[in-house]
Amino acid sequence: MSVYLHDIPLKEAKDKFYSELDKNGLRGILKTEFFDLNEKLVGRILAQPIWAKISSPHYHASAMDGFAIRSEETQKAMPTHPVILRIDEQAVYVDTGDPIPDWTNCVIPIENTEALNHVGEIDGEKRKPYAIRIRQSIAPWLHVRPMGEDIVATELVLPANRVLIPVDLGAIAACGQTKVEVVKKPLVSILPTGTELVKIGEELKRGDIIEYNSMVLAAQVIQWGGEAQRYPITRDNFDEICERVLDAANHSDLILLNAGSSAGSEDFSSMVIDKLGEVFVHGIAVRPGHPVILGMIKNQNNKNIPIIGIPGYPVSAALTGEIFVKPLIFEWLGKIGRQDEVVEAEITRKITSPAGDDDYLRVVVGRVGERVLAAPLSRGAGVITSMVRSDGYAIIPRGIQGKEAGEKISVILSKDKSIIDNTLMVIGSHDLTIDLLAEYLSIKAKKLVSANVGSLGGLISINRGEAHFAGSHLFDPKDGTFNVNYVKKYIPDKKVKIIPWVYREQGLIVEKGNPKKIFTLEDLRRKEVRYINRQRGAGTRILLDYYLDQISILPEEVNGYDQEEYTHLNVAADIQSKRADTGLGITAAARALDLDFVPLFKERYDLIVPEEIYDSEIFQSVLEAMKDEKFRTRVQALPGYDISCMGEELLQ
Amino acid sequence: MSVYLHDIPLKEAKDKFYSELDKNGLRGILKTEFFDLNEKLVGRILAQPIWAKISSPHYHASAMDGFAIRSEETQKAMPTHPVILRIDEQAVYVDTGDPIPDWTNCVIPIENTEALNHVGEIDGEKRKPYAIRIRQSIAPWLHVRPMGEDIVATELVLPANRVLIPVDLGAIAACGQTKVEVVKKPLVSILPTGTELVKIGEELKRGDIIEYNSMVLAAQVIQWGGEAQRYPITRDNFDEICERVLDAANHSDLILLNAGSSAGSEDFSSMVIDKLGEVFVHGIAVRPGHPVILGMIKNQNNKNIPIIGIPGYPVSAALTGEIFVKPLIFEWLGKIGRQDEVVEAEITRKITSPAGDDDYLRVVVGRVGERVLAAPLSRGAGVITSMVRSDGYAIIPRGIQGKEAGEKISVILSKDKSIIDNTLMVIGSHDLTIDLLAEYLSIKAKKLVSANVGSLGGLISINRGEAHFAGSHLFDPKDGTFNVNYVKKYIPDKKVKIIPWVYREQGLIVEKGNPKKIFTLEDLRRKEVRYINRQRGAGTRILLDYYLDQISILPEEVNGYDQEEYTHLNVAADIQSKRADTGLGITAAARALDLDFVPLFKERYDLIVPEEIYDSEIFQSVLEAMKDEKFRTRVQALPGYDISCMGEELLQ
Repeated sequence: MSVYLHDIPLKEAKDKFYSELDKNGLRGILKTEFFDLNEKLVGRILAQPIWAKISSPHYHASAMDGFAIRSEETQKAMPTHPVILRIDEQAVYVDTGDPIPDWTNCVIPIENTEALNHVGEIDGEKRKPYAIRIRQSIAPWLHVRPMGEDIVATELVLPANRVLIPVDLGAIAACGQTKVEVVKKPLVSILPTGTELVKIGEELKRGDIIEYNSMVLAAQVIQWGGEAQRYPITRDNFDEICERVLDAANHSDLILLNAGSSAGSEDFSSMVIDKLGEVFVHGIAVRPGHPVILGMIKNQNNKNIPIIGIPGYPVSAALTGEIFVKPLIFEWLGKIGRQDEVVEAEITRKITSPAGDDDYLRVVVGRVGERVLAAPLSRGAGVITSMVRSDGYAIIPRGIQGKEAGEKISVILSKDKSIIDNTLMVIGSHDLTIDLLAEYLSIKAKKLVSANVGSLGGLISINRGEAHFAGSHLFDPKDGTFNVNYVKKYIPDKKVKIIPWVYREQGLIVEKGNPKKIFTLEDLRRKEVRYINRQRGAGTRILLDYYLDQISILPEEVNGYDQEEYTHLNVAADIQSKRADTGLGITAAARALDLDFVPLFKERYDLIVPEEIYDSEIFQSVLEAMKDEKFRTRVQALPGYDISCMGEELLQ
Repeated sequence: MSVYLHDIPLKEAKDKFYSELDKNGLRGILKTEFFDLNEKLVGRILAQPIWAKISSPHYHASAMDGFAIRSEETQKAMPTHPVILRIDEQAVYVDTGDPIPDWTNCVIPIENTEALNHVGEIDGEKRKPYAIRIRQSIAPWLHVRPMGEDIVATELVLPANRVLIPVDLGAIAACGQTKVEVVKKPLVSILPTGTELVKIGEELKRGDIIEYNSMVLAAQVIQWGGEAQRYPITRDNFDEICERVLDAANHSDLILLNAGSSAGSEDFSSMVIDKLGEVFVHGIAVRPGHPVILGMIKNQNNKNIPIIGIPGYPVSAALTGEIFVKPLIFEWLGKIGRQDEVVEAEITRKITSPAGDDDYLRVVVGRVGERVLAAPLSRGAGVITSMVRSDGYAIIPRGIQGKEAGEKISVILSKDKSIIDNTLMVIGSHDLTIDLLAEYLSIKAKKLVSANVGSLGGLISINRGEAHFAGSHLFDPKDGTFNVNYVKKYIPDKKVKIIPWVYREQGLIVEKGNPKKIFTLEDLRRKEVRYINRQRGAGTRILLDYYLDQISILPEEVNGYDQEEYTHLNVAADIQSKRADTGLGITAAARALDLDFVPLFKERYDLIVPEEIYDSEIFQSVLEAMKDEKFRTRVQALPGYDISCMGEELLQ
């Protein structure tokens, strides 16, 4: 059932693939097409340069409303010694843009002339004057746009490979061209395969997988300038897949065969490609996404069509698109020299990488004080939200087994660089109100990213200057306060403010109807009650430990004490999915997943923010949110929340 | 005929317009629409946030091909003390992505199991095993992707205002949503008016203007995310314009009425808007483009539709699009917080600005050594190529009358910032081979911009470090050499290399058939021969002066000696348009415009490049071009050119 893939390095795989493309004349611009000049050509790429057919202007044009005259006849004109020019014989009225007569060589603006009705008199009325009086000399070609001022016939107007911008279209028209030859968009066919796949919107059974990879790949192709065709889902059947692939080969420039690219029992991709053509590479040393296949098949015209077998995990699929499909489309479009924007950043936590692979690490980036930080996102190949949230990725090259926290990494940005200065990095304990804050900030064009490391972890990070603020609800059993004592202890190096944010209820989240009849912490002694805990340092965990101690329950007595989750919602999800029976958490999480809740105690959740950040521009939007009536109303509406403390006097 | 517009400052104009939009509820997102989830939504903007309907995965899924088992049953397994688990009862085979049975809680990868066919024996053949042997303990939930690993039902997946990227579409599908509400593209109708306008491709008479502003404006609208509708040309007729505008008002979100926005005799725009609604602003203190009209008209449903009267000069029109249409479309799309990329640069030459206006100066930017330079392009409102060539613009605010060479300006980039490091700034004497070099470099993703200031001006600029290299053909009458003596004199501060580039013929460009029978420089004595000269410092001018002196002709004797052009092609264009009868220039320019040519002498055109730039990465592409067979062949094919010196030993 299991065949080991022999992953080869990325560069080697690419070299092999591109040399095969070379042999088949599939490098560089693939196809071109002609269009009559029109506005929809914006963004298309010129396949041929544009040389001017005519000049622009194509005649000597007046640049003013006035009279076209001969410069020589004005040479002696002075304020005290005017010159009179007869209309039609010596002066011709022209509007801006009108051609000037051949025998004229300059234009005097209308406001610098006096219209004459009969000799010696100035006409006040609106009758047609027979002459104009001029009191200044006009240099030759003054107020004339000479022919070719903008473009001279035969000159280069636009080079090949130009991505057309709106004004380019104007210049093409101005130089007398009416048609353009642009690069044709490569057609990429995308074939999703897999018996377990169901279409978006279809009813779901356990084990069904919603097929959206083909949509993501198609959207990538469109975004990069290609044309995408999505095939319907093919089940895991060798002959059916062969048939569809052959069909696609007859009209496509590239085929993406999704999933089945590994070496499992139902992974037909390599067999299909092997039957219809040749597999050049199977397995590439990149993470995530290594079981990639690169090959080529023959269509009915005996033409070789490249085909890529794309792994099934959504992150692997999208990343394979980035690594293999994007450069190919760009090459075929003649889009060259495009440089990725790269930013150097400090990684916020230690990560380990597989030594043999190029590791593509998704990160969010932000600036905290003077430091640009990159916080790694979930590494899972199935976690599409890690790509949704990411601002870019860092490549940890083969041979390097990871990075220590604080080490520099180069982040290839997928977003505009300005994102760095508009990102609020939040750390600490997760709370649903932080999601609402994120939503509120998005309307202010600010991004909020949160790393859920628990309250204590948050304070430690703030002390290290690794985030803008932390959310914390650390209870001190000694004096019954929240956060103040912990802040003193864990943030010795920084002056911080403690902003009271919300009161919220903590209690036991239980299955709907509470079938196991869990009502107090005492019930955690019962062996059949499977508890799901929060990670060390989480405020919720500290509360649990405090109250367990009060009633003399030892951790070992709690079934599942060692099982940890990082957020309230994940605790609730575990209970919903019956992975556990109960966990300590907040009301809102229980309500969100339609679970029951046994309230036990009330706690305060604060924002902990260094003083220099409290005063910074980026933090002002948080202070605004606290005063915003709509935002307050939304938070108060969450079950178990009380915002009466929000905006209270600062505690430090 | 002439009414003076009272231009008001830009900010005041915008405030007035936006307050009227406010009153009519035309601020913020205008309209939204629903779509079934599909790949074409990439780039659209979410009108509502996406909250998760289901979790992803929506069941506990195996992360490996292997056996789903109970962790507890493996606790005592060790390499030397294996545990045996019966298939179906204690272990179930699962492929990656399959749900694990409820009674299991972890997965052991297939490669870590031994299949058993009968007790105590390991099966080598492909028969179905009845049990597996395990030699390691497996922690609970190992190799399982728990339900909600990616997304937990009810959580915020994407905030409103998000510009959808490909992976977002995947996340929306993954969380169980099938429809999205996105912002509707605003519909902008564009009405070109003017009796002098002709359609692209129509035959041209003198005075005809090719109507392309509507195409440029439509392309801008499309580029900014709107939908554009172009109307056919309306002639200058008040009633016809009214009729078309009313028609547009019935289905558009915005109307652009092009030209006729000034105050000339055929400028109907303000009258039309005044009749159908209200003119708020007529004339804004920006250059180019000041005769803008901002107004609003009522459609048949009594709804107010904003209308902008856009000036007719192509640069004014496109800039009015940038200044007024773009922010409006962005506002209506909910595209907020987008920041223009700005770069600080030194302006390469003195410019003067109208004191009363915000002056939009088009520039090209490049890095020469450590300095980022901005070279101003043509200021003319009719010079669309100034926008085609520009990398962005600087705004010289009202109240400032200009900038001195070397002063810092802030350039708002319209291109990717990487353009700065990929631009070769060339200065000096114009030659057609520099156009060919620009073409060659465009394929290497490098941009070449040239400022034609004549040979001498080029050397002075190189001494000041204002360009990468100069083109020069300065003849020294004393010893018959080219460039060497001038370089010594005019570039005292830098070590430079002189790269021989081409030999080319100089001679008199004359009208086809040479009707005035001009055969030698002696003919320039004839009063009826109108000469067109090159500017001071141009190599061609120095040649002329030298040879005139040789035959004792004084400048005053040459009719037109004071008339100057900056390029060979412009000299040729003047002769073609009969503005002059002859001028000194190169064969290629005469041939390009189908003129006749009287060869007189041969000269050498060199590239003058500072040593540090000669060795820099950006200059290597020029050295490559000199060796490129295709490029050499193209240059040699130009009439009057001899490339035998190209790539010869350097002269300094």
